Amino acid sequence: MRPRRSSEASAEDRLIARHFRPLATHPGALGLIDDAAAIAVPAGHDLVLTADGVIAGVHFFPDDPPETVARKALRINLSDLAAKGARPLGFLLSIALTRELADDWLRRFTRALGADAKKFGCPLLGGDTDRTPGLVSVNIAAFGAVPRGTLVRRDRARAGDRIVVTGSIGDAALGVMLRRDPDMARRWGLDRAMRTHLERRYLVPQPRNALAQALRRAAHGAMDVSDGLVGDLAKMCRAAGVDASVEIARVPLSRAARAALAADAALIEPILTGGDDYELLASVPARKVAALRKAARAVGITITDIGDFAAGNGKARFVDAQGRAHKFVRPSYSHF
Amino acid sequence: MRPRRSSEASAEDRLIARHFRPLATHPGALGLIDDAAAIAVPAGHDLVLTADGVIAGVHFFPDDPPETVARKALRINLSDLAAKGARPLGFLLSIALTRELADDWLRRFTRALGADAKKFGCPLLGGDTDRTPGLVSVNIAAFGAVPRGTLVRRDRARAGDRIVVTGSIGDAALGVMLRRDPDMARRWGLDRAMRTHLERRYLVPQPRNALAQALRRAAHGAMDVSDGLVGDLAKMCRAAGVDASVEIARVPLSRAARAALAADAALIEPILTGGDDYELLASVPARKVAALRKAARAVGITITDIGDFAAGNGKARFVDAQGRAHKFVRPSYSHF
Repeated sequence: MRPRRSSEASAEDRLIARHFRPLATHPGALGLIDDAAAIAVPAGHDLVLTADGVIAGVHFFPDDPPETVARKALRINLSDLAAKGARPLGFLLSIALTRELADDWLRRFTRALGADAKKFGCPLLGGDTDRTPGLVSVNIAAFGAVPRGTLVRRDRARAGDRIVVTGSIGDAALGVMLRRDPDMARRWGLDRAMRTHLERRYLVPQPRNALAQALRRAAHGAMDVSDGLVGDLAKMCRAAGVDASVEIARVPLSRAARAALAADAALIEPILTGGDDYELLASVPARKVAALRKAARAVGITITDIGDFAAGNGKARFVDAQGRAHKFVRPSYSHF
Repeated sequence: MRPRRSSEASAEDRLIARHFRPLATHPGALGLIDDAAAIAVPAGHDLVLTADGVIAGVHFFPDDPPETVARKALRINLSDLAAKGARPLGFLLSIALTRELADDWLRRFTRALGADAKKFGCPLLGGDTDRTPGLVSVNIAAFGAVPRGTLVRRDRARAGDRIVVTGSIGDAALGVMLRRDPDMARRWGLDRAMRTHLERRYLVPQPRNALAQALRRAAHGAMDVSDGLVGDLAKMCRAAGVDASVEIARVPLSRAARAALAADAALIEPILTGGDDYELLASVPARKVAALRKAARAVGITITDIGDFAAGNGKARFVDAQGRAHKFVRPSYSHF
């Protein structure tokens, strides 16, 4: 036990100087030598704030490459900003490192983090570094901006709107199954490219920040799909007090997910209820779907209309080709 | 292993609803049902950002009361905002809970956190909740505002300025020694009130947010003392490229710390190098010290002039009554 930061500070300072300072190129980061960072939020804009973290052995495999841990930690936060229509401003990083962790791990972690920060225009502004006898954990708080009053809220989904999702659903859930049991790839008849696709979708989300501005213009409400499409759509319905009906056959699947599903029809469950998609789920009036699709195509993102919202009391249905509502075995497995 | 948040979401949602939603009274928190929060930063102000966390068994004793863990986690961040002259706007909380942790722990934790959020005008805006097989950890990212360009930077300490600290130094370091070995109280000749004072100073910092505005007006540079006065003043000197000279006899000590020091002169080491003070350390021109003192007195905070900054190359000296520089045994013990 020791006081909060006690006197190991100079070693912590050296570690920060070596690994993190090269990332702190934004002037507001003050070279990471101060107590806090300072940035200007654009005039007429609201500040958008989100925080999300990953813990070794809980949210990532301890032997996952440090590069993918870094990217995932930042990108799950970027995905939240994208879903709100916000442009990234920067992030704070709080990382707990174990003593066993090699210097090389941190070097690779910070290099990948810096590359992603640049790629998404979301600079490191500050944070906190600690040693822990527990598990490696990475907490990120990310900030963005939207023109005042234009944050895209999930509780604004509206009856009559189309339900739109970006990209493809279920890849990450299948990717995690492959990580647990690589033999699945053979049973699902996946080629190497398919297997790699699914695994990468689990390891490195592709947040849809390039679509944030168009989303703000087209959508009444939105959220990111991180806890599985079924559970997240249910949350959106409860928040907005509307019902939703999704045609399962219209849910966009990757070539790899389609192949796996063809081999085992039961995989529709993890595909629709598994997490880690980091796609956008939006309530879009029918007349604006084409404009959103065009804007999405311009930045290399596909969008798919999978159903509609209707007046109701907060229920989401997923219907099969015969129009019957699918009963999910574990729509909401409880970890708590 | 599981995907990022997988399908335990509804149980997580229930836990958030029960324990955290009552704290989310700020409209920008969106009732904690959205992906992110949104707040307006006052026009003409910079956003100030900081993040700091505590881990069970590292920064607090696992059997510390949940109320003090909550208060400390928030207050160490508030202290950073105070040191920058910033007014708090709110915070994000990322908490990792163990399965063994009783519901009662969380109830007490959130109640105390809510009370402090109110007390300091720093509302909960959002965050992240996880179960961990590791150690309980609490990460907070806090936000504040300063009139544009007025952030009080630590690298702006100036030769010729007085070195000013708030409150008293060393209490928390002695408090931690008492937690480790309660018998110290007898050897140091402390009465019950003194013992309680030192322990509480370790458990619950008193961030000097009430002085933030006056600090902005009076100080060229400032930081909070969290890693020990010796180490932190050295950091300030290095950042600003100035030397500092402190008269040890002028460093403000509580009645309890004075009693302990009278019993054991060697305690000057932990007093000056131990962490967790959460006082402000500022570079103030001599002509402004009186105004700062008056402003501090008005909010019940004492300030003490302990020495001066001079032209130099980043070195801090602590001199005894005979004018000799004190040699610290462990000015910078390394934990990394």
